[in-house]
Amino acid sequence: MPEQPTDRAALRRANLAWVIGVLREQGGLSRAQLAVLSGLSKATVSTLVTELTARRLVRAGGIAAGGQGRPGQIVELDPDGVRGIGVEVGIDHIAVTSVDTAGQVVSDRRVAFDVLSAGVDQTVYQLAEVTHRELELVDDAYPAGITVSVPGLVDTARGVVRLAPRLRWREVPLADSLAGQLGFPLERLLVDNDANLSAMAEYQIGGMRGTTDLVYVTGDFGIGAGVIAGGRLVRGAIGYAGEVGHMSMDPMGPQCSCGRRGCWETQVGLGALFHALAAPGDLVSDPNRPIEERMAMIRARAERGDQRTLGALHQIGSALGVGVSIVVNVLSPAVVVLGGYFAALPDWLIEPARIEVAARAVVAEAATVRVVGSDLGFAAARTGGALAALNRVYEDPTEAPERTEMTEAPA
Amino acid sequence: MPEQPTDRAALRRANLAWVIGVLREQGGLSRAQLAVLSGLSKATVSTLVTELTARRLVRAGGIAAGGQGRPGQIVELDPDGVRGIGVEVGIDHIAVTSVDTAGQVVSDRRVAFDVLSAGVDQTVYQLAEVTHRELELVDDAYPAGITVSVPGLVDTARGVVRLAPRLRWREVPLADSLAGQLGFPLERLLVDNDANLSAMAEYQIGGMRGTTDLVYVTGDFGIGAGVIAGGRLVRGAIGYAGEVGHMSMDPMGPQCSCGRRGCWETQVGLGALFHALAAPGDLVSDPNRPIEERMAMIRARAERGDQRTLGALHQIGSALGVGVSIVVNVLSPAVVVLGGYFAALPDWLIEPARIEVAARAVVAEAATVRVVGSDLGFAAARTGGALAALNRVYEDPTEAPERTEMTEAPA
Repeated sequence: MPEQPTDRAALRRANLAWVIGVLREQGGLSRAQLAVLSGLSKATVSTLVTELTARRLVRAGGIAAGGQGRPGQIVELDPDGVRGIGVEVGIDHIAVTSVDTAGQVVSDRRVAFDVLSAGVDQTVYQLAEVTHRELELVDDAYPAGITVSVPGLVDTARGVVRLAPRLRWREVPLADSLAGQLGFPLERLLVDNDANLSAMAEYQIGGMRGTTDLVYVTGDFGIGAGVIAGGRLVRGAIGYAGEVGHMSMDPMGPQCSCGRRGCWETQVGLGALFHALAAPGDLVSDPNRPIEERMAMIRARAERGDQRTLGALHQIGSALGVGVSIVVNVLSPAVVVLGGYFAALPDWLIEPARIEVAARAVVAEAATVRVVGSDLGFAAARTGGALAALNRVYEDPTEAPERTEMTEAPA
Repeated sequence: MPEQPTDRAALRRANLAWVIGVLREQGGLSRAQLAVLSGLSKATVSTLVTELTARRLVRAGGIAAGGQGRPGQIVELDPDGVRGIGVEVGIDHIAVTSVDTAGQVVSDRRVAFDVLSAGVDQTVYQLAEVTHRELELVDDAYPAGITVSVPGLVDTARGVVRLAPRLRWREVPLADSLAGQLGFPLERLLVDNDANLSAMAEYQIGGMRGTTDLVYVTGDFGIGAGVIAGGRLVRGAIGYAGEVGHMSMDPMGPQCSCGRRGCWETQVGLGALFHALAAPGDLVSDPNRPIEERMAMIRARAERGDQRTLGALHQIGSALGVGVSIVVNVLSPAVVVLGGYFAALPDWLIEPARIEVAARAVVAEAATVRVVGSDLGFAAARTGGALAALNRVYEDPTEAPERTEMTEAPA
């Protein structure tokens, strides 16, 4: 039987969340338009807008032109009131991003950091430092939450990194440690897998946003997939879906960080790229240089026809396509988004990958899957984390504290 | 905003469907119990029960003992009023199953039929014959629908088999043809992929029913997977998810029906089994013998230690595990159900498969995935089809015609 809402506070929260949701979808709207869309009275809408204004989630915009009735003031999201923060641990870097309630990135920093040499404790300390600085930058905006992206298997309920082979982490209680060092509320600090967060970022704000059957493949030292099926993230029974990097592609292949041989990521990970195209000491594999700069160096070499570079890229692109075709045959997504370094070298990696995927499709229609590079590039995971951190406020706007008098609402 | 139901007919249908749903879950209930659970008045419940009785979806059961108030007559599903029919096309057989509204199989027949020699038209004619006989057997029960299971890629919206390599079918408008020959309403005749239907059967009535992250792998000449994630069937963007049979496992391997080499099903399909353990003319590969009988012959040979049989089974079981481990690493299900012939030879196939899956799990927890044989055996796909055919009536009980006077409802 359809349930009638009985709890007035729950109903108010649902109404507040509905207003935020419709403003996110449609941009600014007048109170009259909100009343028509919601079926609520204009008085109720005004009360909701007043509360959201006090919580700095919406603000007064311009005057609505045209339409019926007298013009009304537009209500729009207040991008400056609330922030979501995404922090990323990579094998050779730490990075942090803040997004506003409209999903726009307002700051993004990446610093070189050698996680393997530093070890767990020092890395968590450094993460706390970087995050603390970001919390200062957020200034008077309310930090709705912090999400830490990790290239590994995460118990999201407990905030524990179960296993991150490339970081050599096992059973790290990251949420507890970081919340403790920052003095940040544990319930607003999430930890999640990098591929899952990237897939959600693509789904929400990427070039293929709204594609309900989408697979995101990370292009980093490790390779993972984030799977969206029917508009929902597939985590699997114990949260470990998308571990495609350890598909066995060549039992005689090189040793993998997981202990086995010939896993897909030994063929197409960033380590395989550097190994294939760079001699020891080559600047392209220097972790202290910005990754974007190193990618530009590789593009320059490919463009001038360097044979070692072109050969390496073709080989990796083909191996990329072989693995992607397996994922496509299992899941039949509309789009496969290739992230990280794959997206930085599209002409040389994504084209050969597309050819393999098309050749291995079971049926011609299955070859219509689109294989594209991510617009979000190396920032996808932390951006997804920052967006995930906003969900608390989107779902329950009363999470954001009241910071102005209710009477200061726009007229 | 929560919508208020405004259409009285829609509300009545929703209420009728709710009653059927709660009786399916909880078995027989009194009108008083239905009223308490639904929040509807006893008068409304009585009206609903009268209508469902007239449509032969429920019937009067015993008298409810104990509880508060005076004892009431139990209302329970009427298993004899409505049937769902599942028809299955295999490379060497046609089979048909009927289920009642409680999900119990009431009839099941499998006949040897050589689809490749017969060709499309003759096969559809034979399907119509077999289905027509089943419709006669259904007698005075209402056939809610017919679902045809096909080992291939199906455009379910149009009822067209896009490609079934092992049947050598391409672009076969099966729903149209069969509905025409049977004179059965097209909107009640579905066509779907065998693995998808089997997965839904496992999810609804199999030994692992209710497991929300479950993968079913068919064990037939072709190999396909049905994927349930978060309690929902994953069809993929164009409906072709689960095409695991054509994962490339050995580029130098034998030719596959799809035109490529070394696909997984060339290693573990029923054809590979017969090729590995039977000489030409061996009765185990005679399609005119019941498949269950042939499986019993293989079990007998394995039990008495026949080396060729044991070697073949071990090799196939290991190859089975390698492919299953890929699916597990992509999807992280709680359970992988192995169907068809895999389930008939569990000791020799499923054990070696489990060993490979455990050895290839990325993390120890991922090795906790359960790999089990299907209880539904060779009947999973057609049983799933029969269950799917009932969904029309479960969702809208007014689909079932009124066949008794409303006044004949149980007192």
